[in-house]
This record gives sequence, C-alpha cells and structure tokens, in this order.
Amino acid sequence: MNFPIIRRVLGIVILFMGAFLFLPTIVGLLYREREALVYLVLAVIYLLLGTLIAKLPAKENTFYAKEGLVVVALSWIVLSILGAIPFVITKDIPSFTDALFETVSGFTTTGSSILENVEALSHTSLFWRSFTHWVGGMGVIVFILALLPMTGGYNMHLMRAESPGPSVGKLVPKIKETAKILYQIYFAMTVAEIVLLIIVGMPVFDAFCIAFGSAGTGGFGVRADSCASYTMLMQGIITVFIIMFGVNFNAYYFLLGKNKKEAFRMTEVRAYLGIIAFSIITITINIRHMYPSLFRSFHEAAFQVGSIITTTGFATADFDLWPQYSRCLLVLIMFIGACAGSTGGGIKVSRVVLLFKTIGQEFRQFLHPRSVTTVVMDGKSVDKRTVRGVCVYLAAYVAVFAISVLAVAAIESGMDLESVFTSVACTFNNIGPGLSMVGPTKNFFFMTAPSKYILMFDMLAGRLELYPMLMLFVPSVWRKN
Amino acid sequence: MNFPIIRRVLGIVILFMGAFLFLPTIVGLLYREREALVYLVLAVIYLLLGTLIAKLPAKENTFYAKEGLVVVALSWIVLSILGAIPFVITKDIPSFTDALFETVSGFTTTGSSILENVEALSHTSLFWRSFTHWVGGMGVIVFILALLPMTGGYNMHLMRAESPGPSVGKLVPKIKETAKILYQIYFAMTVAEIVLLIIVGMPVFDAFCIAFGSAGTGGFGVRADSCASYTMLMQGIITVFIIMFGVNFNAYYFLLGKNKKEAFRMTEVRAYLGIIAFSIITITINIRHMYPSLFRSFHEAAFQVGSIITTTGFATADFDLWPQYSRCLLVLIMFIGACAGSTGGGIKVSRVVLLFKTIGQEFRQFLHPRSVTTVVMDGKSVDKRTVRGVCVYLAAYVAVFAISVLAVAAIESGMDLESVFTSVACTFNNIGPGLSMVGPTKNFFFMTAPSKYILMFDMLAGRLELYPMLMLFVPSVWRKN
Repeated sequence: MNFPIIRRVLGIVILFMGAFLFLPTIVGLLYREREALVYLVLAVIYLLLGTLIAKLPAKENTFYAKEGLVVVALSWIVLSILGAIPFVITKDIPSFTDALFETVSGFTTTGSSILENVEALSHTSLFWRSFTHWVGGMGVIVFILALLPMTGGYNMHLMRAESPGPSVGKLVPKIKETAKILYQIYFAMTVAEIVLLIIVGMPVFDAFCIAFGSAGTGGFGVRADSCASYTMLMQGIITVFIIMFGVNFNAYYFLLGKNKKEAFRMTEVRAYLGIIAFSIITITINIRHMYPSLFRSFHEAAFQVGSIITTTGFATADFDLWPQYSRCLLVLIMFIGACAGSTGGGIKVSRVVLLFKTIGQEFRQFLHPRSVTTVVMDGKSVDKRTVRGVCVYLAAYVAVFAISVLAVAAIESGMDLESVFTSVACTFNNIGPGLSMVGPTKNFFFMTAPSKYILMFDMLAGRLELYPMLMLFVPSVWRKN
Repeated sequence: MNFPIIRRVLGIVILFMGAFLFLPTIVGLLYREREALVYLVLAVIYLLLGTLIAKLPAKENTFYAKEGLVVVALSWIVLSILGAIPFVITKDIPSFTDALFETVSGFTTTGSSILENVEALSHTSLFWRSFTHWVGGMGVIVFILALLPMTGGYNMHLMRAESPGPSVGKLVPKIKETAKILYQIYFAMTVAEIVLLIIVGMPVFDAFCIAFGSAGTGGFGVRADSCASYTMLMQGIITVFIIMFGVNFNAYYFLLGKNKKEAFRMTEVRAYLGIIAFSIITITINIRHMYPSLFRSFHEAAFQVGSIITTTGFATADFDLWPQYSRCLLVLIMFIGACAGSTGGGIKVSRVVLLFKTIGQEFRQFLHPRSVTTVVMDGKSVDKRTVRGVCVYLAAYVAVFAISVLAVAAIESGMDLESVFTSVACTFNNIGPGLSMVGPTKNFFFMTAPSKYILMFDMLAGRLELYPMLMLFVPSVWRKN
C-alpha cells in the first residue's frame, strides 16, 4: 500500500471540501442566518488543513487498482465526517451519529433521513444537505480529476473505483477530459432543471435544492411532505429529469457528438426505459381506484417509479399505502436501479441485462451443445471476464445484503421483518425511503446507533459498488510496500 | 426433440406409480378403510396404462441433455397429476387444484399443505401423502435407474437432470450402480429412523410417516401440531436424522468404503455443519427468555434449524413468534438449503461456498493482479465452467424468485408482503411453512387457484433445480428432430 499518495489524495479531498462549504455560506448570508459563520470558519479550516496535508512530500510511484479502491473508500469516509461537522456545530443536528448518517446519506445520494422535521433546519444547512447530493452524484474524485492536473497513471484506477457500473468506459483517451465532459453534461442538465422549475413558479431556494436532489438521484427534499405540495407541473418536470439523470451519461455524450444513433442503440438505455414503461403502466392500473382520474394515477405512478428506479427517493404519494403488487414491484426496481454511468444506484440495469443474457446463453448452450455462443451487448460480444465479474458482484451483493439484514434484525428487536428488510434495501441501493416503519412518511431517527452505522456502511458500499468498502477489511491491504 | 423415447420414459414412470400405490392399499386394508379400494383400482389402471405406453415401439437414438431435462420435468408433472387423483376420488381432498398442490408439495418434498385439518384424512391417504416425500426425496428417475436395466447412453443425462447440486458425481463408473448405492443408503437410514422411533414409543403409523418426511426432507406430518406433541426424545431423534439426510450422500459412501477420511475432508459438509452450529447457538441465545431452561431453548433451536436448513419443514415450535433475529436467520438458511447430493432443497451449501470462495478469489486477484488464483473445493481446484454455471444458476434463481413474488402479490391483494415473500421462499426452496399468514401453524388453503399453480411451478422448479422446468418454455425444444 502506497500510504504517502493516499494521504496526498485525502489532502486534496479536504481542500475541495473547504471550497464546497463556501456555497452554503453564501446562502446563509443571503438569508442573514448566524449558521453562515460556522460554515465560513470551517471552510477556511478545511482549506488550510487540506493544503497542509496535500503539500507534504509524496513520491508517486506504485499505484494499482488496490490503492485506487482504498483511496476512494477513505475519501468518502473523510468527506462524510467533515461534512457532518457543520450540522453538529450549528446544532441543526446535535447528535454526531445522526449528523454523520445524514451526511453519508447525502453524499451517497441515498436520501434516507433521520430528521423528524426537515423544515426546522436553517436554510444554510438545508442547502448544504441538498448540495451533498449533487457532489456525491457524479462523484467527488471525478470532480477533482476534472479540475486538477494530476500526473501519474493512477487516474483511471481512481475513476474506475468511484464510478458505477460493470465497465467504466473512457469517452475520450484522456481521463481528465472524460471527467470534464461528464461534469459539463451534469452541470448543464442541473441548470436546465433549476431554470425550468423557477419558470413554473417554484421558490428559487426549493428549485436549487430539488434540482440537486434529482441530479444526484439523492432524494433529500426541503419540505416535510417531500414533493407532494408542489404543483403537478413541477412534479412532472421533476419526473422527467430524474428519469433523465438515471440514463447512462455516455448516451448524452453520443447525442452531442456525430454518432447520435449510438445513443439509441445502447442495450442498457433501452432496457431501462422498457422497465420504466412496464412499471408505470402496470402500477397505473393497479392504483387506478385510489385516485380520481386515470391521468392522476398515471402521474403518481410515473413519479414514484422514476423516483425509485433511479434510486432518488422523492415522493409525492405514500406508496406504502398502495396495493401489494405496486409495493412489491417498487421493491424489485429498488434492486435493479438505474443505468451504469448515471448518478443512480442499485445493481444497475446493465448488470441485470447481462445476467439475463447470460442465462439465455446457458440455455442455448444446452440446446445446441456443440455451438459457440456469446453474450452480446450494444452490438458487441461481451468478454467472459466481464460476465464473471458481474456474477461475482451479484454474489457479493447478496452476501453483504444478507449479513446486513441479519445484523439489523439482531439489534432492532422492535422492528418488523418488512421494515428491517426494506431499511437495508433502501440504504444499500441508495434510494431513501423503504416500507412500513421506514416508509416515505417516516424516518430513521428511531433506530439505535449501531444499526445506523451498519446502514451507513451499506450506503457507502452501495454507492461505491462494494469493493472499495470491502477492501478496507482485508488485512493485507494495510501492509506497507 | 426425441418424442418416442420421452413417451417411453413416461410410460415407465406411470408403471412405477401404479406399483407405489400398492403400499397405501396395504395400509388401508390393515385399517379396514374403504379408501384402500380406490388406491387398489388406480394401481391396477396405472400399471396397465404404463405398460401399454412403455411397450409402444421406440427407436432409441439421439438423447441429449435437452431431452434429459424435458423428460424429468414431464415425469414429475405426470407423477404429481397421477398422485393427486386418489385424493380427489376418496374425497380426502375433493378439489383437484388442492389435491395437486398437496401432491406436488409431497413429491418435491416441500411439505406446504392446503389441509385445514390433517387428522381428518384416512390413514390410507395420510400414508400415501407421506410416502410421496420418500419417493421425491431421492428422485423417482433415480429409483427407476436403480432397478431397471436401461440401455443407451442417456442415463447420465437423466440422473443429472433430477439430482440436486452443481456437479453430480458418479460414485462408481456405472450409473445404475451409483443409483443403487444411493437408494441402499437412503433405505437403510430410513429403516434405522423408523426402528428407533418405534423403540422410543412412537405409534408405528406415525413412525413410518415421520421417517418418510424426514428422509425426503419433506415435512408432511400426521398430526395437526406437526411434531410438537411427540416426546422430546422422539424430537431429538428426528432432529439428528433430518440433519443427517441433509448431508451429501457421497459422504456416507466414503464412510462405507476405504477412504473414510474423504468424508471429513468434504468442504461442503464442513460448511453445512458449521452453518448449523452457528445458527443453533445464536438462536438458542436469542430465544432463551421464551423457554424455561437453556436445554429446552437449545432443543427447540436445534429442531427448527435442522428442519429449515434441510428444507424439511417439521415444526415443534411456532417460530413465527420468535424474535426478529431468529426469524431472519431462519429465512436466510431457507435459501442456503442443504448439501448437494442430499434429499434437501434450497440453493445448496456447495453453491454458496463456491460463491464465497469466488468472491475471495476476485479479491486476491485485485490485490495481486499478476498472480494466477483458482477456487479450491475438497482439495481440488474447481474449473471455470462450474463457477460460471453456479453464478448463472444463482441469477436464474433470483429472476424466477422475483417474478413469482410479483405475480403472487398481483393476485393475492389480501396478503401482506412478508407472507407473499415467504410463501414463495418456502415453496421455491421446498421447505413448507413460511412466516405470518403461511407460518408453521397456518396453511395455504386460503390462496386462490392461480397463486397455487404459481407456487406448484416454484416447488417443481426448486426441486428440479430450475432448468428442467424452464426448458419447457423454450419453443425450439418442442420441435421434432
């Protein structure tokens, strides 16, 4: 393990953290809130601390995938701890465990909250809380890579470790350029959503926070009822944007370039939209009797399906009260999640598609034992190594999931099985609300500290796709080179 | 598809079915029940029908894995339909759907019941119901292979398709001999259990039925309270036997031969016993406060853990009332299941072990990218094809499971999520009782016919390890050669 370089990257992360805190400071000053001062002081401290740590000499030599995974895991933990401190000092969230839970939930774009009354928070903290979604959505390391000229061949390892999906494609040969393009698309789409929401009459503060939440597919709102009290037009705009943010960003890159057709040929994007269409239609029928018009039930179905499959977690309706089929389907698409290379979580559509195609291939092999068959995605055949990687990922995913459910069940004797199961499902998949005791109108405040730390681990493991977080538990990783 | 040979095998299956029915006939005559006549007449009809169909000329030529899978699937469906008919005619279970559900549940050694009051049945039908477990446990095709001198090279395909586990090992070069050895061990162990139970004072009729249920890891009892009213000594004997029937039968073969050490070196058996020990100890602690003594809570934990992990499904306690941790752990080991090559169901311990080892290997590959690592089981390295096969199996398993849950949830609007989830989990894994509305003191009678057929499919798919049943839905399978 190359410790000096890990320290250097962590220093840069702390530096950026300081820079980020200037944004809530500005918001706080506009609202003339005392909390702004806390954010300002912390921003300066982080800036100094980060500079100091990053400046310490470090020989950059060996940097492998292993280092990439560990750096990313540690960066996100440091990020979360530093991000939680302002909540504690401003007393907006006095308990450190709760503040950390909220911040991890923010950066990992989960959106599960421990807040009993979100509207009691200062604007400064509310803005910061939503902004963590935006940073976490595309990834802080990717952000750093886009801005800083980092030398050495380790950028790819860093980006791979932070970006979701079975195979991270470089859009252009240089990582720095790829990271820039991704953030430009991300930035432009976020601005578009903010502008549209303001045009249709949403308060400016809300528009910013809701756009951060949908861009990062996070789910923190600024109102007690999440998105239920916004107009249907606003909800419609949010629906379209959350679904768009769940699309593989490569598709947008293709749309901007010469090969526009490539975007429509992407197997994953087609499957993603297909699953959404299927879910919306069947849920619309299933909940038809609960709403005054077909359009209204379609509207509610579309919002909730988009919100859950992209793992955003906004809600306009208490889907915990919906019939079993709808609840079940929502839990199922919680696991499927959004596209790889998007800001969404879950297992990812591409993995699910790849698994189904592999099952199909296995069958063809049975039927025609002597033929040579391959799994095809986006018109290209997928190599065996990737298929195997996806299978192993799924196995590790199931293992972490099962152990987490068991651990939470052992600690929380007062929770029913459905609540335990969905509390893990919705944090591990970075969604936000679950069912029953952790449903869309409830929160995670009542849980004990040990359970909260387990769920924090799950949120980080889910956002970083398991391996970075699991790597921290391998003893040999901590040996010096 | 080679239809003539499929017809021939089905004929033999019907023939055997006729022979089996003589057993309940004898029991019925002993108890002087009129129902015996029904079983006798049907036995004769099946014998004649089977002989007729099997005798029709058939050229045995092409017979591949595909044919093996389809024959086994169809055999089990035919078996279940023919086995259900006596229940309907004797009016012990008047509804055909319910009778079929009970028979499928019997042959697949699931043990889920639709009977509101099991003690109302005639002894003849009760005996037949339990006997289906015994036949289904080791497999009817394996039974036929052990007795009949079948020519042609297709025996291996048949045995592979019916036997549980990722890789079916031939114990000796000849399939017929392997099948014979397996049934001899199976028979001897069943007799041992019957004798022991009778010695400690269990009524003879109960001893037979309970032994059939534990040998096949089925779970049909003959009393309304399953095994709760037997003495603790009887329950202890049952516990030991169900755990023994969940061990890979290869281990017993090794124990009987010269290589006794081989049995203790089997990775799967060690993992299986390890999981059982862990579960019993933690559940004993978890339920300690509910029972008068530590020994009693150990006794209850051991019985329930053994019953669930081997997918038997007998109960001495209403584990639905146990604390969340115990309920969760029981649901988890429902999925793990027993050893491959045993009579138990579930995903199988060997698959779970193989998956964990593959995850470990993936990590070693990360840490030492240039080293060559392999997955080792029983001291031998596992080839990539097997690892891939297990991963694909798991993926197909999850897919069938998810679709079943969704379908049942869509049909049964009155069931809560926990009941829906565990009703599929306990039929698909061939266990028997689930939680909540399908808990150990409840039954499946209240469900609608479509749900019952879905669960029947799940039971068959679970027992036959997916592919035979899924193969029936591939259109090209039904084309003539």
